[in-house]
Amino acid sequence: MKNKTILVTNDDGIFADGIYWLWEAVKDFGNVLVVAPDTEKSAVGHAITIANPLRTKKIHRNGGFSGYAVNGTPADCVKIAVRSILDSPPDLVISGINIGANVGINVIYSGTVSAATEGIILGIPSIAVSIDSHHPSDFKPAMEITRKTIRNVLEYGLPKGTLLNLNVPDLSTEKIKGVRITTQGTAYFKDRFEKREDPRGNIYYWMTGHLSDSDSPGNTDNQALEKGFISITPIHYNLTNESFLKDLEVWEFNE
Amino acid sequence: MKNKTILVTNDDGIFADGIYWLWEAVKDFGNVLVVAPDTEKSAVGHAITIANPLRTKKIHRNGGFSGYAVNGTPADCVKIAVRSILDSPPDLVISGINIGANVGINVIYSGTVSAATEGIILGIPSIAVSIDSHHPSDFKPAMEITRKTIRNVLEYGLPKGTLLNLNVPDLSTEKIKGVRITTQGTAYFKDRFEKREDPRGNIYYWMTGHLSDSDSPGNTDNQALEKGFISITPIHYNLTNESFLKDLEVWEFNE
Repeated sequence: MKNKTILVTNDDGIFADGIYWLWEAVKDFGNVLVVAPDTEKSAVGHAITIANPLRTKKIHRNGGFSGYAVNGTPADCVKIAVRSILDSPPDLVISGINIGANVGINVIYSGTVSAATEGIILGIPSIAVSIDSHHPSDFKPAMEITRKTIRNVLEYGLPKGTLLNLNVPDLSTEKIKGVRITTQGTAYFKDRFEKREDPRGNIYYWMTGHLSDSDSPGNTDNQALEKGFISITPIHYNLTNESFLKDLEVWEFNE
Repeated sequence: MKNKTILVTNDDGIFADGIYWLWEAVKDFGNVLVVAPDTEKSAVGHAITIANPLRTKKIHRNGGFSGYAVNGTPADCVKIAVRSILDSPPDLVISGINIGANVGINVIYSGTVSAATEGIILGIPSIAVSIDSHHPSDFKPAMEITRKTIRNVLEYGLPKGTLLNLNVPDLSTEKIKGVRITTQGTAYFKDRFEKREDPRGNIYYWMTGHLSDSDSPGNTDNQALEKGFISITPIHYNLTNESFLKDLEVWEFNE
């Protein structure tokens, strides 16, 4: 198990709590490189920075890791780590530990998952880890399942172009009911805009809302979390709706 | 066909050429509302703005449309148009006309496609339109296929949660060979970082690279474009790799 190279990143920024505990969880597997955004980059989806130059800055966290802060997105961090900082690609990319679940439709907004997606685009087995709470009481269960998942990935491998999206309930290890292999459900953030007036009399809007789960009872990510299970979903980047291809063939485009 | 409400957006910004020609292409279908980013937002993926307030500004393009410029991403524009600007949801969301193809793995980076994805999340049939050139010689073929596609969507409908991703070769109407219904391929932007030193002696990086197409000959989006066809791909936001679910069930998480 030793002497693996693991690239650690996140979307909450290199000074967040979650990435510290992720580093703590994985550091015994070998050489860990931390490359993460210099500030919070939540909900950036799969953004990359092409119009502005990227900069990397060496940082050190007291009592913890040294690493590189990047003025870019999670996907940028993975790209620049693999293409410019490391001499050869890492064995694993792990992104997290995110504060807040990344389940349902919301997965497409997730900077945490997008870093892992960038990992698999580059051909590297990748894992995203999130806790289902904005004020997690304990990082330990997420750290444990991350280590178990790494051992499985190193043992069994992952298909090309597939990452694992881990979501962990904010419960103590004893209270977690187990692990469920799930599908991405259709829970989504039912958003609305709160209209306000600034001191100069100009209108502005805050996006706000709440998670709405329309999943029928089944094996989805959010349903597993709600029932106290850890959810593990295999995610790829093939977005084709194959089942609709045939129907489309009959459409008339040539009249 | 008349009296449909169509929401038009893009990722190149409300003052780009492509959105002007898209408005021109669809304005006869009914009421067209243009809500688009105030500046270029390419490669933002499915980013949304949650940490900053959003503002909308009424703008008017001489000899063209009035609309709203938003200090956010394409997905923000669709959200705010549907939730705050319009009284009821539009019949269609159309995003484009993008300068540059959105095919292969790169679809996940695309702001153009993400606007259409936001449309389908909100339950609205949506279309993304791109031209395969950074200096298109002619918007007419893209305008024509957009109109034809709208007619088909209004006639046949789209499955819930599925958008159409249109990519048009930069050829005259006569030279375009036809329309192909395609799958998202695996063409990707093989990126590298160009290292430079700024006038103060600090290192910075530009992301650069080229499109690499590893698709085996088949019915993929990029292969259709290369052969001179318009590509139409049905895209959804279900990212689960269903075929790997069974394998995962045998992994050991409880030891």
